[in-house]
Amino acid sequence: MFENNVRTEISALGEFGLIKKLTEGIVLKHDSSLLGVGDDCAVIKAGEGQCKVITTDMLVEGVHFDLSYTPLKHLGYKAVVSNLSDIYAMNAQPEQITVSVAMSNRFSVEALEELYEGIDLACEKYNVDLVGGDTSNSKQGLMISITAIGVAQESDLVYRNGAQENDLICVTGDLGAAYMGLQILEREKRIFIENPNVQPDIQQYDFIIGRQLKPECANKELAALRIAGIKPTSLIDISDGLASELFHIAELSGIGVIIYEEKLPIDQQTFDTAIELNLNPPTVAFSGGEDYELLFTIKQDDFEKIKGIKDIHVIGYCTPASEGMYSYTKSGTKLSLEKQGYKAF
Amino acid sequence: MFENNVRTEISALGEFGLIKKLTEGIVLKHDSSLLGVGDDCAVIKAGEGQCKVITTDMLVEGVHFDLSYTPLKHLGYKAVVSNLSDIYAMNAQPEQITVSVAMSNRFSVEALEELYEGIDLACEKYNVDLVGGDTSNSKQGLMISITAIGVAQESDLVYRNGAQENDLICVTGDLGAAYMGLQILEREKRIFIENPNVQPDIQQYDFIIGRQLKPECANKELAALRIAGIKPTSLIDISDGLASELFHIAELSGIGVIIYEEKLPIDQQTFDTAIELNLNPPTVAFSGGEDYELLFTIKQDDFEKIKGIKDIHVIGYCTPASEGMYSYTKSGTKLSLEKQGYKAF
Repeated sequence: MFENNVRTEISALGEFGLIKKLTEGIVLKHDSSLLGVGDDCAVIKAGEGQCKVITTDMLVEGVHFDLSYTPLKHLGYKAVVSNLSDIYAMNAQPEQITVSVAMSNRFSVEALEELYEGIDLACEKYNVDLVGGDTSNSKQGLMISITAIGVAQESDLVYRNGAQENDLICVTGDLGAAYMGLQILEREKRIFIENPNVQPDIQQYDFIIGRQLKPECANKELAALRIAGIKPTSLIDISDGLASELFHIAELSGIGVIIYEEKLPIDQQTFDTAIELNLNPPTVAFSGGEDYELLFTIKQDDFEKIKGIKDIHVIGYCTPASEGMYSYTKSGTKLSLEKQGYKAF
Repeated sequence: MFENNVRTEISALGEFGLIKKLTEGIVLKHDSSLLGVGDDCAVIKAGEGQCKVITTDMLVEGVHFDLSYTPLKHLGYKAVVSNLSDIYAMNAQPEQITVSVAMSNRFSVEALEELYEGIDLACEKYNVDLVGGDTSNSKQGLMISITAIGVAQESDLVYRNGAQENDLICVTGDLGAAYMGLQILEREKRIFIENPNVQPDIQQYDFIIGRQLKPECANKELAALRIAGIKPTSLIDISDGLASELFHIAELSGIGVIIYEEKLPIDQQTFDTAIELNLNPPTVAFSGGEDYELLFTIKQDDFEKIKGIKDIHVIGYCTPASEGMYSYTKSGTKLSLEKQGYKAF
């Protein structure tokens, strides 16, 4: 099939390396293509001073989700949320989505209706219109591809590359919960496979499991920033884990970072479950993915304005790039930040 | 997994029935959502009098393509063309695409580069920017999801529902070639599986195989219409087969149709191959999919203007809906048109 004799495994490059390799030669031809590959969304000019932002994502059964513990309604909801999160991460407002679904004949019409109930619920919650898409067969499993379109004034957009030395580094909500929820779901699945008669007892993990199965976007915090008159200098959503997103911001902005582990917002249930599973809670917060919180930087001058806003936490500050990327533990030890997603556990 | 005890097979509804069921309750909330599900593209307001049109499509290995006879470069090219064709089918100009790819570890980086070579080539040919997307793993096989974005003046858009009684029905190019190419490729594959030592002799089928593996959009014909001052009253691209698309136009416009089989543009190689395989050439033209030609209607008054345009063929006219959908054979027999895609063979 392949005439070329060289064979490089995709795992040798990783997702980001692969995208870079496949898209490095691209030269944008249209004036309307304001921004291509490389941020949370592409940006397309749409009238005087206005932009559309667009993002797309494909979810594959067995890779991105496990239907043995994921209800289809939750899956539909989460698939939409993960895309809308990328729109908010440009400081834009989502308005439309398209949804493509491919599924094997294992799935019934009723199963698909459950999936679309979740999709519709997310559209309702985030005030988004489902405007297109298609359905088709697959040989095996379920695939969902969603494209989300948002709108913004060009001057309101916030990119990954705008962080400056001395800017404060902030996150919304709390971190690591979705990852710990996944660990519990995976553990209960293993127990069930070993002994199907054991009743799972997961009530004490309701918060973290909810964060894994039915995440939400941090749009309220973004609105609060706007009301407070704060425009972040850089912005990204936390889908692959805080550490991974910090590296994106740092590399694109040309800065270094200092993070204080004691400032990381970690819910008590996340913390307790991490301890139970012999994991270090700050490491979970740095490396756990799928929280769909926002990571952003603001000017030091905005500190007074941000102090009173609910669910926003200052976790560190930007340094010159030459000073690298570090975190301080509670006991004051300085550690080099690792560029790890949650796969690194 | 499914709490609901009722199980309806997806095959009981078919693709169009399924989409209808899943999207029938949708009420568009945003003023910017000018058109949702139901045409070749969704339409989104983008500045004064301007629109963005958007379409998305997912292709699944083993369902939509067969890599035993489809070079990856051709696959990438065709995946883009099939989406751009939907943009042209709104009388809009494509400007951007996003591409999501999921593949198993059977695929190397070099294989993906071949796929992207085809994608890039189509972007070059049709003057389109690749602005986003993602890559991920799959458990099995290759999946490609493309979203295309086009631009148009709102007043230039042509929908499926604008055909009127007495309008002339036209198609671009020629019909049935891609389907006949597929038949030859499938035949050669069977022969190869039975006896791998037989050298395939497919030179005499080069045109139809090319139409199957590397289709093009009918954008030149659309440009010629514009120059001639003709705005079609309805427009759709022929991806599922002429008959299927005629039913879409007729149902949405509230008309009937009369088609003259002798007017159907059928290439000699398509014709000869149909005869060789004991198929009726007009049936192939009606039911063969993937030609990516355009089907459109124009006012009778525009007949003089259209006569001289290359590669445009008047194949019939619109009647009142009450008169139904019919074709006349060469010998003058009147036949009821069947709503068949090429799966019906």
